[in-house]
Amino acid sequence: MNYPSKLIEEAVEEIAKLPGIGKKTALRLALHLLKRDGEQTTSLAEALVKMRLNTQYCRQCHNISDHELCALCTNPRRDASVVCVVEDTRDVLAIENTSQFKGLYHVLGGIISPLEGIGPGDLNIESLLIRLAEEGSEVREIILALSPTMEGDTTAFYLTKRLRQPSLRPFSLKLSTIARGIPIGGDLEYADEITLGRSIVSRIAYD
Amino acid sequence: MNYPSKLIEEAVEEIAKLPGIGKKTALRLALHLLKRDGEQTTSLAEALVKMRLNTQYCRQCHNISDHELCALCTNPRRDASVVCVVEDTRDVLAIENTSQFKGLYHVLGGIISPLEGIGPGDLNIESLLIRLAEEGSEVREIILALSPTMEGDTTAFYLTKRLRQPSLRPFSLKLSTIARGIPIGGDLEYADEITLGRSIVSRIAYD
Repeated sequence: MNYPSKLIEEAVEEIAKLPGIGKKTALRLALHLLKRDGEQTTSLAEALVKMRLNTQYCRQCHNISDHELCALCTNPRRDASVVCVVEDTRDVLAIENTSQFKGLYHVLGGIISPLEGIGPGDLNIESLLIRLAEEGSEVREIILALSPTMEGDTTAFYLTKRLRQPSLRPFSLKLSTIARGIPIGGDLEYADEITLGRSIVSRIAYD
Repeated sequence: MNYPSKLIEEAVEEIAKLPGIGKKTALRLALHLLKRDGEQTTSLAEALVKMRLNTQYCRQCHNISDHELCALCTNPRRDASVVCVVEDTRDVLAIENTSQFKGLYHVLGGIISPLEGIGPGDLNIESLLIRLAEEGSEVREIILALSPTMEGDTTAFYLTKRLRQPSLRPFSLKLSTIARGIPIGGDLEYADEITLGRSIVSRIAYD
């Protein structure tokens, strides 16, 4: 495309590097910024740079944090005996929004995906094992909250194998995964066969 | 949502001000930038600020430009006798990509839309009239290339009324609009009735 200005072209190139944003959308966003006050552009740019330079990953759970330890890990009211293992920060936010979990998290920072060249070594798995084996560790249960996809299941399989090493903990560690089944409000008729099949196999007994 | 970091929250707020980007997408983009090299964020921020500060609108056609007059207006090989009136810069790019137009442009910077509170006074209409009435103006034809929507048709109607004022030009000014009809490759069966009806009314005679 012949951009009317070299500067626009450079901005479009940079915006289009973001995931899910193509050249056309990038141009639309660039033209939007040009129409607005210059202040909007500078505060957007500043917020991005400040975020990039000043946030870090929590030393314990690898969630994004403003400090060395994140607000969840340092909160004394959280139950340190349960750790929920998730793929990334967005999953932490999603689970926090349910208000159903009061334990701590461990953010893997990705998921095993041979197609994208992501192996176990690229994820925060060793640090989870170290966290469990640490002296004074209170962790008694690990909940795996990974997406029920091929990659999620592979990662969960790998993690259960590693977490069940007898050398790891002198006492027993409970391992669980989040329930899979028909979503609340979902219609049986429209559920896919695999989900429906699993929901029958993992049926929950009434008391 | 409880963001894990104040800085992320601020970045998400700023990104979500862009059109078509909600909080969830904004968070996805922010987390993407955090995963990448810091350099990507700084070059994105710099490109945006540089674009916002250093681009301007062409004095003659109001297209975005790096200089006072844009590359199209100063190109001696363009035909200055035909001016194509468009809504915004994206339309200039779209028409330029067809390689079918060799004249100049006039960018209105919007379209008359009472619902959004945009009236003729908010558009670059007076400057078009001045451009035509200027001494030495070579313009002999105006092509209206506006979208065939309610707003586009309203704007075209207003423009034709203004451009037909006898006081404006001592000689005749040709006025035209881009053809409306069945898109090339389109199937008659699936065309909407209004387009199909118009394409019959404005049928083109074989020589």
